[in-house]
Amino acid sequence: MRIALLQAAAVPLDVDHDLAVIDAAAADAAARGAELLLTPELFPVGYAPARIRAELTDTTIEDAAVRLAAIARRHGIALVHSLPSPADPHRGITATLVDAAGTVRGVHTKTHLFGPAEQEAFRPGEARPPLVELGGLTLGLLICYEVEFPETVRDLAVRGADVVLVPTALAGCPTVARTLVPARAVENGITVAYANHCGLEDGLVFDGESVVAGPDGAPAPRLEAGPEPASSSAEVAPARAGGDPELLVAEVGPARGHLTPHQDPDGPWYLHDRRPALYRRWAEED
Amino acid sequence: MRIALLQAAAVPLDVDHDLAVIDAAAADAAARGAELLLTPELFPVGYAPARIRAELTDTTIEDAAVRLAAIARRHGIALVHSLPSPADPHRGITATLVDAAGTVRGVHTKTHLFGPAEQEAFRPGEARPPLVELGGLTLGLLICYEVEFPETVRDLAVRGADVVLVPTALAGCPTVARTLVPARAVENGITVAYANHCGLEDGLVFDGESVVAGPDGAPAPRLEAGPEPASSSAEVAPARAGGDPELLVAEVGPARGHLTPHQDPDGPWYLHDRRPALYRRWAEED
Repeated sequence: MRIALLQAAAVPLDVDHDLAVIDAAAADAAARGAELLLTPELFPVGYAPARIRAELTDTTIEDAAVRLAAIARRHGIALVHSLPSPADPHRGITATLVDAAGTVRGVHTKTHLFGPAEQEAFRPGEARPPLVELGGLTLGLLICYEVEFPETVRDLAVRGADVVLVPTALAGCPTVARTLVPARAVENGITVAYANHCGLEDGLVFDGESVVAGPDGAPAPRLEAGPEPASSSAEVAPARAGGDPELLVAEVGPARGHLTPHQDPDGPWYLHDRRPALYRRWAEED
Repeated sequence: MRIALLQAAAVPLDVDHDLAVIDAAAADAAARGAELLLTPELFPVGYAPARIRAELTDTTIEDAAVRLAAIARRHGIALVHSLPSPADPHRGITATLVDAAGTVRGVHTKTHLFGPAEQEAFRPGEARPPLVELGGLTLGLLICYEVEFPETVRDLAVRGADVVLVPTALAGCPTVARTLVPARAVENGITVAYANHCGLEDGLVFDGESVVAGPDGAPAPRLEAGPEPASSSAEVAPARAGGDPELLVAEVGPARGHLTPHQDPDGPWYLHDRRPALYRRWAEED
């Protein structure tokens, strides 16, 4: 399955601008053969927790969701977008997977909010992250800080995720994209796609460094724009962005964390070899 | 606390040779001011599972343990060594922390055995990895493949480990030392010290790449042999070995994973922000 990641700067609270960026990225991604476009955390409204709390109306959010579904339908591409929940009953940070027909296939509310600014503006979700079957693969959803906790990705991988899609807003901590995201991929034998903002937004300079980390921990091969290379043995760059705006395109495939030594003589066999009963017993010793 | 890691090639089943390597490393480490020497998995007998099962006697193992305690005592340095258990009741792979007086302070039996060769030669342990108070820090023990599972390191970190000491025998998988070990450190806000074999041993070429990964995921500063640099602002290389034999020396310190936003305004606050009740509830939905 071919996926695309949007890395760009949003303009806080300028929904028309931000949806135009997503619309252009969806057109580009579809033209490059991608079946799904992953966009950064809260991109349609900008990453601005206090301003979202103070200035954003439920009507604006609901209208943005309708327009995002229309973008998916218009370009015939599945879309993962991230919006605040409506204020009633309480505002969370969500990620939604809309398919190419514009139908909502999965919604996740962020369970681990990062720091005082997010915790003042939002309430955390409680529900288990969803899995969505699409394009022959099982796709999981997480948001930003959540992927830094091994428990969240493990839960999705054990339940059969091939790919975990992560809208993020990461500033000033490149270790996450360079070390933790690849670790989540390799320790579960899955692919983790992590799409970040870049540049200045509401006073924060975002790291960029969006990445598609494959089951061996290395970035998936990056698919360049333009005609396919004549030779399949051509050098391919890894699917890891720098600090500038970019549409990152890569092929993703099935998980391998469930394989046994009979199926894969070389290992590692992380999901096969983990010992959940032992971990539970240890925790009961507290 | 200053620690040293031995990276070297053992000679399988040549206990005299291998203990002489540890003895020399202990002398060197003590001379360089280290309070503890970490040695690789099964170093005193070589990493040779089938030969250990077929050729090694319990008497040889017990004698090696006595001589290792004497090495610690003689050089006045704590030592983490790794030996097979005696065959009776069953042979496991252990790691033992002996203090500078030669007293055993903690023993761990490897709970996650790697692949058919280890699983045929050894039986897995069941007990929770131990914590040992030494030098003002809380030290945890794990062995090789175990550190690749986030559950094991998390368990030690939640219980208060500052440093996790990991004898290992890693061949052909540099992603572990480069990505997973730093990830374990940063995702728990602790230090992980990982000491590997290098070079050829019983048909395997070991990766070396021993590393001391600090709470920010970056290698701790390496302390070079010889006099301390005159200026404290001198460039310091990271505590990460290459593929050759080496004694790696580094300073390690307290954990920071438990800090709250009040104690550390920048974060992340991984142990503070994790949600174990939520993870348990999710698992119960299966």
